[in-house]
Amino acid sequence: MKSNKVFIATSLDGYIADSKGGIDWLETFPEINQVDTGYYSFMAEIDALLMGRGTFEKVCSFDIDWPYEKPVFVLSNSLIGIPEKFQGKVELVSGSLSEVLAQIHQKGFGRLYIDGGKTIQSFLKEDLIDEMVITVIPVLLGGGIPLFGPLSKPLVFDCKKTTLFVNRIAQSHFIRKRG
Amino acid sequence: MKSNKVFIATSLDGYIADSKGGIDWLETFPEINQVDTGYYSFMAEIDALLMGRGTFEKVCSFDIDWPYEKPVFVLSNSLIGIPEKFQGKVELVSGSLSEVLAQIHQKGFGRLYIDGGKTIQSFLKEDLIDEMVITVIPVLLGGGIPLFGPLSKPLVFDCKKTTLFVNRIAQSHFIRKRG
Repeated sequence: MKSNKVFIATSLDGYIADSKGGIDWLETFPEINQVDTGYYSFMAEIDALLMGRGTFEKVCSFDIDWPYEKPVFVLSNSLIGIPEKFQGKVELVSGSLSEVLAQIHQKGFGRLYIDGGKTIQSFLKEDLIDEMVITVIPVLLGGGIPLFGPLSKPLVFDCKKTTLFVNRIAQSHFIRKRG
Repeated sequence: MKSNKVFIATSLDGYIADSKGGIDWLETFPEINQVDTGYYSFMAEIDALLMGRGTFEKVCSFDIDWPYEKPVFVLSNSLIGIPEKFQGKVELVSGSLSEVLAQIHQKGFGRLYIDGGKTIQSFLKEDLIDEMVITVIPVLLGGGIPLFGPLSKPLVFDCKKTTLFVNRIAQSHFIRKRG
């Protein structure tokens, strides 16, 4: 089974980071951290993660243990190596998206968590995203790094589910509607 | 009672019209027109509408009977008159938002439906929106006229309700969280 899925939080105006790259606003309602928003069941159903260099470096910058149990592929055409402490945890991949996917599929990983703004946008540009779970933190930031960007053609999804958490935060589950 | 409310549909990437100003994509799932999405109960709970010139001219361009039963105020600092066929239906207002609101409140209309992208953005810039009901048509357009724009400060809302219509379209109800 092959699929490319997104699980991400945005502001109400569609940003994944504020204009300085900050994500403090994700903690506007910290009670969200006390409930099950489906992250672990989502993670249980993917075989590996694929993220861009920016997201990888962001994750590395957090003062936390390595947060992923599944293999992580870092998509970069500029990085030439992985810092020693992350060796064995992540693997660099490069090339076109179809080349990158072929490499990862060949290793036996079909169901992929696609993460990071630029990577998600590049996948959407080639209509390679099958599902998106988007949690909307109800804050208008007024600017920042948007989740979505330009496309070569509109893409139609179905919203299959919408859930309200802690009486404040809505999460919607979108599935790409093809053909 | 005074309040300023929004009831609007956007694309999944936050646009209220495509890059040519078109809204055909609103009909991606025409079955939405067969269900009650709360528009009539929303309209029943407002006293008047306030929209910008652009939205007024868009409504005038539709080949339909005048769609509003409540008084409509058109906010414009450039229009000098209303076409004859709309006289008695709409009233021009101008000035700063606080001046415009004072004029409308003085006429006895407190609960207002604020409509139109530019007008909503100008209200949000002055933190004058109390509630928003946003219906997300699950289409990524890739560009167009955005609902939200720059702000002088972030605005925090609560999402009080989220509803799935026709198994495809999510609607969320946001209430401004002040103080």
